[in-house]
Amino acid sequence: MSDARAQNAVVRRPVTRVTGRSREQIDDAIAVERPLETRVGGRSLAVTLRTPGNDEELATGFLAGEGLLKRRVDVAAFALTMASCADEPDLADITLAPGVPFDWTRFERHFAATSACGLCGRAHLDTLRAGLSPLPAGAAPALDRLHDLPQRVRAAQAAFVETGGLHAAVLCDDALEPLVLREDVGRHNAVDKVCGWMLAENRYGAGGGLLWVSGRAGAEIVLKAARARIAALAAVGAPTSLAIELAEAAGMMLIGFVRDGRMNVYAGG
Amino acid sequence: MSDARAQNAVVRRPVTRVTGRSREQIDDAIAVERPLETRVGGRSLAVTLRTPGNDEELATGFLAGEGLLKRRVDVAAFALTMASCADEPDLADITLAPGVPFDWTRFERHFAATSACGLCGRAHLDTLRAGLSPLPAGAAPALDRLHDLPQRVRAAQAAFVETGGLHAAVLCDDALEPLVLREDVGRHNAVDKVCGWMLAENRYGAGGGLLWVSGRAGAEIVLKAARARIAALAAVGAPTSLAIELAEAAGMMLIGFVRDGRMNVYAGG
Repeated sequence: MSDARAQNAVVRRPVTRVTGRSREQIDDAIAVERPLETRVGGRSLAVTLRTPGNDEELATGFLAGEGLLKRRVDVAAFALTMASCADEPDLADITLAPGVPFDWTRFERHFAATSACGLCGRAHLDTLRAGLSPLPAGAAPALDRLHDLPQRVRAAQAAFVETGGLHAAVLCDDALEPLVLREDVGRHNAVDKVCGWMLAENRYGAGGGLLWVSGRAGAEIVLKAARARIAALAAVGAPTSLAIELAEAAGMMLIGFVRDGRMNVYAGG
Repeated sequence: MSDARAQNAVVRRPVTRVTGRSREQIDDAIAVERPLETRVGGRSLAVTLRTPGNDEELATGFLAGEGLLKRRVDVAAFALTMASCADEPDLADITLAPGVPFDWTRFERHFAATSACGLCGRAHLDTLRAGLSPLPAGAAPALDRLHDLPQRVRAAQAAFVETGGLHAAVLCDDALEPLVLREDVGRHNAVDKVCGWMLAENRYGAGGGLLWVSGRAGAEIVLKAARARIAALAAVGAPTSLAIELAEAAGMMLIGFVRDGRMNVYAGG
């Protein structure tokens, strides 16, 4: 299901484990976080802290989530250059196919930070709802098989089990069979990688399916899933108010707190 | 300890709770996520998705974390305008004191997204380490009282307990007594709010203390704490590789997995 366990996603480091007053030196597995600079046509677009691995999916999926790319065939070439120095970002170079337009003006604004990453530089928030077309009624998958999904995902999520420091995003088909698992220190990155996989598989925008995320469901995650026309989003954690509003606008089923044989349906139920 | 429980931080919504095959309608508490646009001198700087409350701390603390503000006295005025429409951002207007410089050029680049928020728009990553001056040796607090800090914090973290959807950041003094608790849907926002509180209390950059965060410790959190010259960072979750490297560069103690009577010391031990 996954090739996310790139060898460079985890490093081992010496750590002092403190239990009460006792201390011991152990060798611990740490999730790697490194900068990746994405360029389109040689022009710098974004610098992202991410866990190395599936970087082509990350870069193309990020563009798709921003509404700037809908088909993998619009990318003529992709080149990844790993930096030799720790202070320099790795480079993801995207070359668009001839004639494919790219709206740079959307990025030529000041940046925004913190949890609003996908909103960076947007002076107005109405873009949040733009592009959210309702999914067809009845497209949401049945919930019967959702209860044991976290266990099935966890079994496949080797890097998280090792480090405890990676988020996961899993795309499932309508029968809730996992199709692809991607991991990253950033929740948004894990979802971008899944979206990049969908692009490569010509599944982006096809509709249906369910996206499972290991953390909480914020507005940005809903927006990325809605742009990909995924019919349902299920999170281990809580949704936010804006996430619920956006899911309702998109006609997406939104499920939270999927754990311990329970779940809460916040939209599209 | 906290005034983070603003009444508009939580909304109640109808939710369908699914347990096995049974369903019931409940009324659930949801963490509010709303956009905030920060302007400096009338010019738009950033749009952030955040939980309303302590917005002046958020806006000023964010600027401090970016290295653009070091003293609260450099802010002549702050005005918050809540939007009347859900699609519009709330507005945080900062007026700098006469003669206070502000380096807009740092923001006039393309944006970056996902987990690298604080790196947005930076073409080069060496700025990550710039400004990290080592803390004095022996500045780190003793760990003896750290084991029960999560329980003490959780007791004070009412909004999280209610919604399950908020991150918390807590600044403690050298004796590990909590000084301030701030909550937000975004981990970075919660830390920014604490930094804004430090600015207002003339504690920003004073050195010492410990910052506790409810989630994981990524590079951005370490960077914000190091800029505030907080001596130690303790996280409930895992650190990343870059977080450890930055903590070492800053001479900061970095502790992870603070739970169940255990903790791991990753740097500065």
